[in-house]
Amino acid sequence: MHEILIEEKILARNDEIASENRKALKGKGIYSINIVSAPGAGKTSLIERMAGELKTLGVKFAVVEGDLEGDFDSKRIERHGVSALQITTGRACHLDAHQISHALPWVFGQDGIELLVIENVGNMVCPAEYDLGEDIMVTVMSTTEGDDKPYKYPAMYRGVDALVINKIDLRPYVQFDMDYFKHGVETLNPGVLTFPVSCQTGEGLLSWYTWLRTVLG
Amino acid sequence: MHEILIEEKILARNDEIASENRKALKGKGIYSINIVSAPGAGKTSLIERMAGELKTLGVKFAVVEGDLEGDFDSKRIERHGVSALQITTGRACHLDAHQISHALPWVFGQDGIELLVIENVGNMVCPAEYDLGEDIMVTVMSTTEGDDKPYKYPAMYRGVDALVINKIDLRPYVQFDMDYFKHGVETLNPGVLTFPVSCQTGEGLLSWYTWLRTVLG
Repeated sequence: MHEILIEEKILARNDEIASENRKALKGKGIYSINIVSAPGAGKTSLIERMAGELKTLGVKFAVVEGDLEGDFDSKRIERHGVSALQITTGRACHLDAHQISHALPWVFGQDGIELLVIENVGNMVCPAEYDLGEDIMVTVMSTTEGDDKPYKYPAMYRGVDALVINKIDLRPYVQFDMDYFKHGVETLNPGVLTFPVSCQTGEGLLSWYTWLRTVLG
Repeated sequence: MHEILIEEKILARNDEIASENRKALKGKGIYSINIVSAPGAGKTSLIERMAGELKTLGVKFAVVEGDLEGDFDSKRIERHGVSALQITTGRACHLDAHQISHALPWVFGQDGIELLVIENVGNMVCPAEYDLGEDIMVTVMSTTEGDDKPYKYPAMYRGVDALVINKIDLRPYVQFDMDYFKHGVETLNPGVLTFPVSCQTGEGLLSWYTWLRTVLG
């Protein structure tokens, strides 16, 4: 009982800071996306792909990277000419609004950006509970994880604004029933937009970029 | 500061209960394995494979399944003639020793078992901190997650007794540098046993069964 009360206090405080983050980002005219997934689903690969395409579309963006340790992902992103700030969470299995609030001065120092992409820690449970102040949350899942995942990790399908289904190039080699998967998604989050893509081959990504361009206005 | 103190109190209490679980399991002559992984790495598939093979080897075992919601995995296991108890963790991203202590009466009611397999919630962060009272902890990872995972999720590679590298049948289709991966593992956990397998094709599983037979004595 005690533990639950403490957790609710932590979440309430997180929500307050998230609201402040949201207001600050809006004030600067920066749209923000919180990308969540299981480890290895392809969040970083998706952002690497976006780096090339959004440049062509004239959209300048910056990335805040959340990882337990190291700066492997921010280095991957920077190789594509996109600024990235690494947050290391240590033992924490998700980013929180407080960490993002500390990253905002860096974000606001990135000249001319209109989009902030936050790559959360790879985890299909806790990031769902921590609002960071983002405009939209996007879950990336990969076909190799299996078609039962919405049924088993509902929180990360329920509240999200869009779903990227990555690694569709591997479908011939894995058991993945798209109808069963989509039925699970639809039950949790009716009408949610889904983008079947391959960050390896590039298949399907055009729809994703087009939609992003639309939400950015 | 407050949060950290509370967490340490929770972990200390968890460790106490884990010790009691360990003593109780030892008292009944039951060996136990805690299997951890990212979502969709193949824990359940590995246990399904073990169901057939361990029967042949004359090893009777039972399974305790941890999931946020539903009983999909325990049903999959039971189809192979192995008893499985489902624990649903709700919002919690890992099993804890207290939950296992409540499962022990059921475990001890399973006639003639010499092995308990605990399938943890799919999460590459928090299960590392929660001792359940098991004899050994095994991480399952899959080649489709990428070769950088030990560098990014070190806790779940550091303390474990064995590592199953699943989905090696998909290596021709993904970028996975086994040397880079193994270098990361070796740095965190020198000399740890690794079992490259495919739960889809069965490749490599013989070494895994043989080793299991050895640890069971």
